[in-house]
Amino acid sequence: MSRAGEFELIRRFLAPLATAAGAGGLEDDAALIDPPQDRRLVVTTDTMVEGVHFPADGPPGLVARRLLRTNLSDLAAMAALPEGYLLNLALPAWIDDPWLEGFAAGLAADQEEFAVSLLGGDTVGTPGALTLTVTAFGSAASPVRRSGARPGDRVFVTGPVGDGHFGLQAVRGELDAPRLAERYWLPSPRFGAAEGATAAADISDGLVADLGHICRASGVGAVVDLEAVPLSAEVAALGAGARLDALSGGDDYELVLTAPESAAIPIGRIVPGAGVTVLDGAGRPVALARRGYQHD
Amino acid sequence: MSRAGEFELIRRFLAPLATAAGAGGLEDDAALIDPPQDRRLVVTTDTMVEGVHFPADGPPGLVARRLLRTNLSDLAAMAALPEGYLLNLALPAWIDDPWLEGFAAGLAADQEEFAVSLLGGDTVGTPGALTLTVTAFGSAASPVRRSGARPGDRVFVTGPVGDGHFGLQAVRGELDAPRLAERYWLPSPRFGAAEGATAAADISDGLVADLGHICRASGVGAVVDLEAVPLSAEVAALGAGARLDALSGGDDYELVLTAPESAAIPIGRIVPGAGVTVLDGAGRPVALARRGYQHD
Repeated sequence: MSRAGEFELIRRFLAPLATAAGAGGLEDDAALIDPPQDRRLVVTTDTMVEGVHFPADGPPGLVARRLLRTNLSDLAAMAALPEGYLLNLALPAWIDDPWLEGFAAGLAADQEEFAVSLLGGDTVGTPGALTLTVTAFGSAASPVRRSGARPGDRVFVTGPVGDGHFGLQAVRGELDAPRLAERYWLPSPRFGAAEGATAAADISDGLVADLGHICRASGVGAVVDLEAVPLSAEVAALGAGARLDALSGGDDYELVLTAPESAAIPIGRIVPGAGVTVLDGAGRPVALARRGYQHD
Repeated sequence: MSRAGEFELIRRFLAPLATAAGAGGLEDDAALIDPPQDRRLVVTTDTMVEGVHFPADGPPGLVARRLLRTNLSDLAAMAALPEGYLLNLALPAWIDDPWLEGFAAGLAADQEEFAVSLLGGDTVGTPGALTLTVTAFGSAASPVRRSGARPGDRVFVTGPVGDGHFGLQAVRGELDAPRLAERYWLPSPRFGAAEGATAAADISDGLVADLGHICRASGVGAVVDLEAVPLSAEVAALGAGARLDALSGGDDYELVLTAPESAAIPIGRIVPGAGVTVLDGAGRPVALARRGYQHD
């Protein structure tokens, strides 16, 4: 196996990323985390499996950055700012030193961009699929949860919907849209956008599904104006069907917010009741073939 | 596949374990953690892969408890008390509802025993091996790190060495020792034992290897008296070779401590220099075939 052993791997590729004092140079059994005073600690975790959550032949630097950014997006949805992260790697035999070097370089780039440090983790071998877990820590003065939406609130999104869904098609070569492929690999966590919201979620399961989670947690319903949902030029150019697909596609990392007011883009309103209703330009309910990304 | 979908699985098996307020019923993008005042937050994480870190046909309740306890052991090594944990599951198709039920029941039992709550996590499908990650949180008034050992300190262990190593042989049916098999599945995190130590580590990589990590982090050496190392009756009965195997075997979750004084069992001393030297009853250095568990 053309790969450094566990301790050597940690020394060469991971220890240089552990810049925070609490990481203890990755030498302790555990890491220390000290959230800034008067802020609450927020923690989130995502596991990604090759071939399920990302293409196995993806550039390792982009695989790393997407893994980190999707976790940072969950922090942003809680109105938290990022502090650091843990990394768990289950590595099959085909992972070699150049792959690890690219992976670590991707993390280093995003550590710089988001001012975070690796704090610890675990690296093991696996006879199965490459399995990557990041656990990200942030701090929030007033964490925003999914349960605070109230009838009368408006519904907002922080940016175009569907770029991630069609970006994956572009990554797979099914669509010629290099900017969407880049949006798939490098989602932008919307730090700051959820400040003051009554509820928020990132739309990694799709806009309708994640707004539905907010509705269920809050005991309310939502009405979305289909024509108000912002699309990027590339997605808009794919026609009317694409607009519906964008609403239910996964892999997007904009936030959906509920609030009386917000600087984000208004797309609907919270109502008494339950569930998400999408209305077309004439105010008629739209039937959605698929309500959201089906996890497994 | 005879298994509930992701959301149903979370609702049935995992949400009942999320008893802490900060878990938000597992409905948010992230969890909230509030360490007790005047204590520092300590975090650790371990990934286990079927067939690599535990027998794939192990009882799911014991797989769960070992996964949780090995993480709690890392907290104990930092002189922390447990607060809660995150759980990441990458589930292959063969995992069915009865397996998940047993797994959750094991966690419930240990949540009771150690007063911890599930705080969040991620559940995904995998075409590969069952891959389990726990990230455990604790709090410590004065965290103990590996870097504080000083010449003149004595070296202690919190209990018999080698039970985990030979316990795995018992689990595999290579040894008739049911109590050791239970010690393999159910290690006891040594909460409280590291209080006041200058350095501590659990001996999951083996006594010599983990004491070696303390020596490297502290810039010191250690001398261990082979005859002073405590063995359980079952391991002692396996003969002189077993004593040496016990020193380098992995899967043990006693702590090795360095301190001027401790209530634990003295087995040696910290000296200037580097590395771990094991002396026999006549004071002669002992050659070790294997210095510790080789990770992959």
